[in-house]
Amino acid sequence: MSYDTNNIFAKILRGEIPCIKLYEDEHTLAFMDIMPHTEGHALVIPKEAATTLFELSDDAAAACMRTVRKIGHAQKKGLGAEGIVLMQLNGPEAGQSVPHYHIHVIPGSIADLRKPHSAHMADQGHLKVLADKIVAAL
Amino acid sequence: MSYDTNNIFAKILRGEIPCIKLYEDEHTLAFMDIMPHTEGHALVIPKEAATTLFELSDDAAAACMRTVRKIGHAQKKGLGAEGIVLMQLNGPEAGQSVPHYHIHVIPGSIADLRKPHSAHMADQGHLKVLADKIVAAL
Repeated sequence: MSYDTNNIFAKILRGEIPCIKLYEDEHTLAFMDIMPHTEGHALVIPKEAATTLFELSDDAAAACMRTVRKIGHAQKKGLGAEGIVLMQLNGPEAGQSVPHYHIHVIPGSIADLRKPHSAHMADQGHLKVLADKIVAAL
Repeated sequence: MSYDTNNIFAKILRGEIPCIKLYEDEHTLAFMDIMPHTEGHALVIPKEAATTLFELSDDAAAACMRTVRKIGHAQKKGLGAEGIVLMQLNGPEAGQSVPHYHIHVIPGSIADLRKPHSAHMADQGHLKVLADKIVAAL
């Protein structure tokens, strides 16, 4: 699958469209999912152009996992989340909707995945309140 | 959460109970899930004693992702899987049933997670047939 440079996460990485940012380092960016499964649902993406795990470099994969751990820890501390679910979909057949590698970091339980995610964009003000709590706990 | 050395995956790592092995290296082991969500559902675990991502070392996390990529690639090639779903549950509140870090590598789609996994152990002969196809494609 060749990489589509106009996908929405590529645009977020280039600063062409906004996101509610949680964390950024040289290799990764973490931000709020705007159609969340649960309160505090975040996404971690590499800066490398990769559609799925099968194109991602080992270094970028390792960097993503370090950032996922930071975000999950902050969701526990900042939001009082007890369980943290990681989910990562490879390919449209898996249900991947944006063709840039991304890991869902979801405060909650596997039971929360059994309902489809929100069909509507979440209230931005509410997402920002949750994001501030996560960022304060990083 | 302190690590329980008598959990089932620790016993598999010590060779005290069997598994249908797919792949093993210095840091990781991959084997068939005996209560699969879908045909070919595999698990990747680190050899390090860690209950969740929050106790896992960076090196072990990176090693797991390298093995996950190998297994996912072999599921695509060997089983004709189109989508590959990764799922990893942290804490009993998330639905984690075995207290040793493990990544589910599931050929299929997020829709497959909306049904509970099999409540019964899968037929071992059938799992072995699937495992042989995955191993041949590694």
